[in-house]
Amino acid sequence: MQFHLNGFEPGDPEIADPARRYPASGAQSALPADVDVLVVGCGPAGLTLAAQLSAFPDIKTVIAEQKPGPLLRGQADGIACRTVEMFEAFGFSEKVLKEACWINETTFWRPDDKQRDHIVRSGRIQDVEDGLSEFPHVVLNQARVHDFYLDVMRKSPSKLEPHYARRLIDLTIDKASGNDPYRVTARFERVDEAHQGEIETIKARYVIGCDGARSAVRKSIGRTLEGDSANHAWGVMDVLAVTDFPDVRMKSLIQSAKDGSIIIIPREGGYLFRIYVEMDKLAEHERVSDRKITADDVIAAAQRVFHPYTLEIKEVAWWSVYEIGQRLCGKFDDVADGVDSVPCVFIAGDACHTHSPKAGQGMNVSMQDGFNLGWKLASVLRGRCKPELLHTYSAERQAVAKELIDFDREWAQVISSSKGADPVETQRYFVQHGRYTAGTATRYRPALLTGASSHQHLAKGLTIGMRFHSAPVVRVADAMRIELGHTVKADGRWRLFAFAPEGDAGQAGGRMRALCDFLERDAASPLRKYTPAGTDIDAVMDVRGIFQQGHREFDIGGVPSLLRPAKGKFGLTDYEKAFAPDLKGGRDIFDMRAIDRDQGGLVVVRPDQYVGHVLPLEGFRELSAYFDGFMRAAD
Amino acid sequence: MQFHLNGFEPGDPEIADPARRYPASGAQSALPADVDVLVVGCGPAGLTLAAQLSAFPDIKTVIAEQKPGPLLRGQADGIACRTVEMFEAFGFSEKVLKEACWINETTFWRPDDKQRDHIVRSGRIQDVEDGLSEFPHVVLNQARVHDFYLDVMRKSPSKLEPHYARRLIDLTIDKASGNDPYRVTARFERVDEAHQGEIETIKARYVIGCDGARSAVRKSIGRTLEGDSANHAWGVMDVLAVTDFPDVRMKSLIQSAKDGSIIIIPREGGYLFRIYVEMDKLAEHERVSDRKITADDVIAAAQRVFHPYTLEIKEVAWWSVYEIGQRLCGKFDDVADGVDSVPCVFIAGDACHTHSPKAGQGMNVSMQDGFNLGWKLASVLRGRCKPELLHTYSAERQAVAKELIDFDREWAQVISSSKGADPVETQRYFVQHGRYTAGTATRYRPALLTGASSHQHLAKGLTIGMRFHSAPVVRVADAMRIELGHTVKADGRWRLFAFAPEGDAGQAGGRMRALCDFLERDAASPLRKYTPAGTDIDAVMDVRGIFQQGHREFDIGGVPSLLRPAKGKFGLTDYEKAFAPDLKGGRDIFDMRAIDRDQGGLVVVRPDQYVGHVLPLEGFRELSAYFDGFMRAAD
Repeated sequence: MQFHLNGFEPGDPEIADPARRYPASGAQSALPADVDVLVVGCGPAGLTLAAQLSAFPDIKTVIAEQKPGPLLRGQADGIACRTVEMFEAFGFSEKVLKEACWINETTFWRPDDKQRDHIVRSGRIQDVEDGLSEFPHVVLNQARVHDFYLDVMRKSPSKLEPHYARRLIDLTIDKASGNDPYRVTARFERVDEAHQGEIETIKARYVIGCDGARSAVRKSIGRTLEGDSANHAWGVMDVLAVTDFPDVRMKSLIQSAKDGSIIIIPREGGYLFRIYVEMDKLAEHERVSDRKITADDVIAAAQRVFHPYTLEIKEVAWWSVYEIGQRLCGKFDDVADGVDSVPCVFIAGDACHTHSPKAGQGMNVSMQDGFNLGWKLASVLRGRCKPELLHTYSAERQAVAKELIDFDREWAQVISSSKGADPVETQRYFVQHGRYTAGTATRYRPALLTGASSHQHLAKGLTIGMRFHSAPVVRVADAMRIELGHTVKADGRWRLFAFAPEGDAGQAGGRMRALCDFLERDAASPLRKYTPAGTDIDAVMDVRGIFQQGHREFDIGGVPSLLRPAKGKFGLTDYEKAFAPDLKGGRDIFDMRAIDRDQGGLVVVRPDQYVGHVLPLEGFRELSAYFDGFMRAAD
Repeated sequence: MQFHLNGFEPGDPEIADPARRYPASGAQSALPADVDVLVVGCGPAGLTLAAQLSAFPDIKTVIAEQKPGPLLRGQADGIACRTVEMFEAFGFSEKVLKEACWINETTFWRPDDKQRDHIVRSGRIQDVEDGLSEFPHVVLNQARVHDFYLDVMRKSPSKLEPHYARRLIDLTIDKASGNDPYRVTARFERVDEAHQGEIETIKARYVIGCDGARSAVRKSIGRTLEGDSANHAWGVMDVLAVTDFPDVRMKSLIQSAKDGSIIIIPREGGYLFRIYVEMDKLAEHERVSDRKITADDVIAAAQRVFHPYTLEIKEVAWWSVYEIGQRLCGKFDDVADGVDSVPCVFIAGDACHTHSPKAGQGMNVSMQDGFNLGWKLASVLRGRCKPELLHTYSAERQAVAKELIDFDREWAQVISSSKGADPVETQRYFVQHGRYTAGTATRYRPALLTGASSHQHLAKGLTIGMRFHSAPVVRVADAMRIELGHTVKADGRWRLFAFAPEGDAGQAGGRMRALCDFLERDAASPLRKYTPAGTDIDAVMDVRGIFQQGHREFDIGGVPSLLRPAKGKFGLTDYEKAFAPDLKGGRDIFDMRAIDRDQGGLVVVRPDQYVGHVLPLEGFRELSAYFDGFMRAAD
């Protein structure tokens, strides 16, 4: 898709008239008196969380935002492979892939040895290593990502719309409220003209502060962002420009001899691109705002680095200056270390960790925060999990944020010329850390939700604690080639992927049949214990079987009944539970993910796509024990 | 995507609340007094045509439909590969691919030799041969295809909405109107309650009857559908059902020993499927309506064929009975054979050719009619082509319709048991004619728009007169892997694909440079002659270069300026004109389409994706002559 040729226009580029592109203006009603979940802030973390909660009409959610309406331009743009995998779960990956700019290659530029004030290309690499994800690394205006989430919310069973123009005044937690589940009280001031200054009070079971680096929610629970500031100013601008620099449609890392570094990020629509420009070093205690840096300063700095190439800016769609600084909160909820009580206030995204923009982490990590917390809140509110599950949010996400901030800090140093422009080192570091940038390096430590690695050898390529790494399979019933990971939707359900041993086609007497029969019928089966009466058998845990034979080698009628369950009011057969390897395509999932062909194995996948456990097909007791750790028996 | 589990619901399945799914109700205004184009009928032909015209805000179009609103259920469902290629040009292929059911394999069933009243599987084949198209064969409720077109129209520069509840009363052509371009007058009766019986009169330059087999437009120009009726009744129903027949999620052709044939078509959402059921042979002059066939009759007939498998119908979403009959009009416009005057009334779709439903031709051929006519009307109305171009619509499409009707008639006989159930012959015929079913067999004969085959050997795999067969390429500027055919959008523009000779990277002195320089600068160049002043250089003819080198082997800065043109009000560079083969993927377009590596070649592609001509890179004179045949010099 090509657009923005004659100037940047916000909104859906498929709508010809820019005046018709503006997204909906949000909920028009006053805030309700009480809700299950109050989300403060309509950024990437808040919208991911709200979109997840909107799937459950039995949960009453409000998402409030201080701005008068949806974001239209600017801010983050990098979308990691892992994030597109999550968008697939939310049902809009194809929209992002169509509209975004794909980052296929990254180039590296350094001073010309023969003429130090000229830059020359020193390297060119594939941006994402083969096989890291079925999705590419793309860039797209953050505002469009918001639009897609808002669309999911609007179409959801909850028909959720944000309440805009609400400024959070304060938040109080009634520790002594006893049996009143609405423990948190929030006060908002309306900042829209028609209601200017009106105060609204809302009570909530849970409040999540997704309200950015200056988070009022964070302050209300007495937490702070800790970290250093690198005292180094950078400029960022989205521009329409004419240049003879040949790599303007690649991600390009340019280090000049004495004028600093710039990074080029090509953007959606084929014309727009972003430039990060290294500006001056700041004095101690000096803030970037003190410098009064203008857009012209940023342009001039970029032009100096570009030499001998020209850069003629035609339009600046958005620009900003910022100082590098990675900061982190010690804990992401309101419960002090060592205290046992269940948290009721959480913080996510920039409210608890801030990154430098150039590593492309901020938006991606924030959305994963929202995805991590969303299903947990929903499970607890719907009575499916014990409230103690909520401790795992801070435990899991704070550790990840710390790791990524360490990476980010190192990366920021490598790319800044202050450390001395070393393009060879830059390229080496970039390649080595591709998995961080892609968002696929996250690994949760063994804990309540992350099983021990005793049986990891059964599926070496599906690491416990890491995201389920998809691979292609063929659906037996209709010979459809799909990515197995795309069966994991953002619907709050667990997936149990049962990989069959060699020769097992699900026949009676076989190990797959034994597992399915246990799951379907045994009183100790987590499916039996945790699936509420009157719901489909896959309402809580969705079991899928992957066999080693080619899909034409057996009939769907022969697989265990759990893999062709009767569902819904008519008892219709669900034909999408049994799979075979993609033998024709030559990409056998058993090889790709190193599944033990002799033993098979059972891979438990969390509702947020992370591998919770790997167990033997006969690990009935261990499977039950895992779920008994945090699930609550269905009423 | 899975949906329809608890009953069929029309509309967008991504919207949770069925009551919110209904599409817009159309234009609320009265019909205007005069228009450039009046389209009668909101079926597949009419909507394709209207969607194409809606891209041009300088053309005033009205599309009127007798029904009170958009179609919600039933009717056609088969979408051929070729049709998805066209959807890609209209920008909604990804929506269809996501929501539709993909037909991956087709199975064949015959009477069991040992037990003649049982059916057994006799064959199973891949539905579409490898490499026939980059898109699959899919099935989706026709109503959803309408929705996607309506969405294109609504978002277009023209913001076109249908006028519903308009019944065409009559149409008159003022042959003697002299210089009045509005030669056709149509009268409509409003059939909506609020305006019941009101008469509206509208004058148009061109009228297209897409008003179905009983077309009032066809009657008004004195044409008739000619053809035989096979006197054979079939039932069709979309059902939610429970069955132990194992291939219900495959396309299945089932021929029983004595109870006739049925065809199973799996449908979108994972549960719904369609059954075509052979009913009784009709007596001569007997109509299917005389038989008073009920839904229960159709179900009972299907159940007889299914033996020994069971079929328990839970919901009938839609059903109908019809008689096989292929009928065709001799000419698709209002001008008598041999008469020279420019046509002003056209007919398209079922109005001029009807097919039996089972070959899946009707909707697909009708949409291709609309696509064929749309760009021609737009080109003439916008002054870019001579009005004589409009003769090519009937010439091209009538011949295609005849060919497909011959195929359809033969296929209907093969599949009907009246000819004796011969599953081997059925399977053989099915495989042999896969290209017809896929819609890729269409070939226009040499004529005004279809060049002679003197230079066909330069690109043997891109047949003149057939649709441009896409292949993967890598965009030089950003290393993006795309399908070359997807650069052909439904925007009324021509594409000139210049394939470079070996070793040519577009450098000065080379043949690619010479061609580009001619096209860009020579007074005899069709680009110079036919591109209006003040528009971008690719506004009428979009030139793309495909080189033989890997994409890393040359810089975008070195390609001819025509392949990196300055566009729009800022003179921004369009970086999406130069391509390299997909060497890493191992699918080199020069091999796949048998391009002469030594000579290269120029492939001219029409706005409807058909190859107009293949010429040598130096064929400047022949290229000019081709376009001079039908283009009009820009003012």
